[in-house]
Amino acid sequence: MISVALLGFGVIGSGTAEVLTQNSALIEARLGEPIQIKYILDLRDFPDSPFADRIVHDVNVILADSEVSIVVEMMGGLHPAYDFSRAALEAGKHVITSNKAVVAAYGEELLTLAEEKGLRYLFEASVGGGIPIIRPICTDLSPCQITHIEGILNGTTNYILTRMAESGASFAEALAEAQALGYAERDPSADVEGWDTARKICILAALACGKMMPIDAIPVEGITRITVADIRNARKAGYAIKLVGTADIGENTLVQVSPRLVPASSPLSTISDVFNGILVRSDFLGDVMFYGRGAGSLPTASAVVADILDIAGGSPCKPRTWHAGQPGNAAEGICRRYLCLAGKEGWEDLVSAQLGQVELIDDTGSEIALITPPMRECEADAAIAALEEAGMALLSAIRVL
Amino acid sequence: MISVALLGFGVIGSGTAEVLTQNSALIEARLGEPIQIKYILDLRDFPDSPFADRIVHDVNVILADSEVSIVVEMMGGLHPAYDFSRAALEAGKHVITSNKAVVAAYGEELLTLAEEKGLRYLFEASVGGGIPIIRPICTDLSPCQITHIEGILNGTTNYILTRMAESGASFAEALAEAQALGYAERDPSADVEGWDTARKICILAALACGKMMPIDAIPVEGITRITVADIRNARKAGYAIKLVGTADIGENTLVQVSPRLVPASSPLSTISDVFNGILVRSDFLGDVMFYGRGAGSLPTASAVVADILDIAGGSPCKPRTWHAGQPGNAAEGICRRYLCLAGKEGWEDLVSAQLGQVELIDDTGSEIALITPPMRECEADAAIAALEEAGMALLSAIRVL
Repeated sequence: MISVALLGFGVIGSGTAEVLTQNSALIEARLGEPIQIKYILDLRDFPDSPFADRIVHDVNVILADSEVSIVVEMMGGLHPAYDFSRAALEAGKHVITSNKAVVAAYGEELLTLAEEKGLRYLFEASVGGGIPIIRPICTDLSPCQITHIEGILNGTTNYILTRMAESGASFAEALAEAQALGYAERDPSADVEGWDTARKICILAALACGKMMPIDAIPVEGITRITVADIRNARKAGYAIKLVGTADIGENTLVQVSPRLVPASSPLSTISDVFNGILVRSDFLGDVMFYGRGAGSLPTASAVVADILDIAGGSPCKPRTWHAGQPGNAAEGICRRYLCLAGKEGWEDLVSAQLGQVELIDDTGSEIALITPPMRECEADAAIAALEEAGMALLSAIRVL
Repeated sequence: MISVALLGFGVIGSGTAEVLTQNSALIEARLGEPIQIKYILDLRDFPDSPFADRIVHDVNVILADSEVSIVVEMMGGLHPAYDFSRAALEAGKHVITSNKAVVAAYGEELLTLAEEKGLRYLFEASVGGGIPIIRPICTDLSPCQITHIEGILNGTTNYILTRMAESGASFAEALAEAQALGYAERDPSADVEGWDTARKICILAALACGKMMPIDAIPVEGITRITVADIRNARKAGYAIKLVGTADIGENTLVQVSPRLVPASSPLSTISDVFNGILVRSDFLGDVMFYGRGAGSLPTASAVVADILDIAGGSPCKPRTWHAGQPGNAAEGICRRYLCLAGKEGWEDLVSAQLGQVELIDDTGSEIALITPPMRECEADAAIAALEEAGMALLSAIRVL
């Protein structure tokens, strides 16, 4: 029998208890022995829960129990989640987490400590909810050099953008709807400003290139300024607008979070509502994409339980330790941009002088919507500044994937 | 150092040698030791190959060499591929294969033998080429009960259907084009008649439910009768036509290969050209989809090498052994069907009497295109027979996904 302790009995913690209980026969058949939830650490009591008798309030009860071989941290936040994870590894227990903030901030330290102790620190549930992505990168893709990752990694913003596209709702209206449905938090800034996506793309990039970029060293832009007109213009040109985390792995590794015009030919373009999709490009495998529910209690819990089964089954497979790194110079990144500019007599000459041969989407007289040719970020910024100088106010600028 | 022997130096065998050679530094860093290709078994000699000195013609050289711990079978066909695989396991060597025919026909026996011997029999490359699918089902999805699988599993037919949709080419024209590009074999029947897809969906179903259905016990229909008119009608109603293998896992497990009208809302609908996509539905994870290159030398080889690294790294993870099984009664399956019928005065009453409330796509006078409500297969067959009896000839019938 394998004894596990759950830290946190919130959305993911209770989902994990549900998966382990409801599929206990299937899990025991596959593993060859049962998994027991011996403790659940939470500040609260849950007198009506079937797990009421497992609730403890002191982490030391868990750390001191040599029967507990796996600790699953699902508390959220950096502290005490990190401190308890570290203490569990020091007490000789494998640690599993769904906590992307801890993985992004302390992953290097915890992976190294686990390595030293002959233990495992796994975090499949920290990126993409239930979607298999960390383990495939560490196993199926291990013969390959990953060169590029692009992902729709946040269900809240994808829901909002889908609603804006489908119903013509404004950002504020779609956000309110997402909040009413429980898809967005009361303070939605971590999602809509792009920070949740940033942590996840940094974790994926670290697995791919061995370097964890500091979140505040990469360009991060959210979706709060996207308008219904942008979505309409994008569609007219054959694109959907999605919030995308990208990582270009190479000598000058660039990691970025930005709304993007995604072409209809991309498999990311049809990912709607709260679904996530992650495309990984590598030397021999080309493009592979992983698609599914990027959040939610039970999908995320099933990723946690897959990690438990991996450890309990004795698999030695583990994420490779990374080191702190710095991203390359974002100003050197090259992409096309969708621009919406205030119209002005004679705009054609101004635009072609600054941007070269553009793809015109719409010209209403008052607004010019277009897509630039591929330009370096710094060149595009300079060109836009020159157009503003010449009297063409910038209404929107969104990168093309 | 890990010594491997490759059986077969064709498309996949030479790709495997290329992946192991080109990424040898990366693989050694990840594994902690190098992988050596000690032998390559082939009937031919390859005097100009850098691997010329590894070529052997007698499998017994490999079987007798105790240094070789992993044998990779990439010969194709049932014999001697099966016989050599069995002999390698009996000689105490792990076996990896890309050969779906052997897995479908002899998987139970070879998995059981490997289990008895404490060895592994892995076949990630046998389904979906380079797409990670077997290992995710065996690891990431192991906490879940899989209830349904649907996949575009054959790149040749998907290319043909994509070309028919894009260019209006007939099936014969698109097939000729695929043959000219090397995407289709000179005898394309295994692909276009659906047998390749059938083997693959049977392997996935066996992993999901523990039962391998005999290929000739499941309904298999290819794409040879799909017309440009069908594709146009489907598009008008919001569908693409794809060749899909489906498995409904339950008390009455149904496995089937059939062209399908795939709704635009399905993530399978945008999978074009030679790409494959496999959607797996399970109790806790909901829908996840895996997308990528379903064939090709290097993508398939990277799946083979991932299996080598899995074994070399000491992972105990393995596909669960299955047993021979029989599918449920296909006549009890329920789906909607697209029908194209020869027009006839008063067809409305005939159709509504036999099919109930249909979705009319087109009525040209001479042809009626429609989609039926969900019906049992046997009921739909009976209704179509009655319509034919009444003078409405059946021009096309395609299931809706």
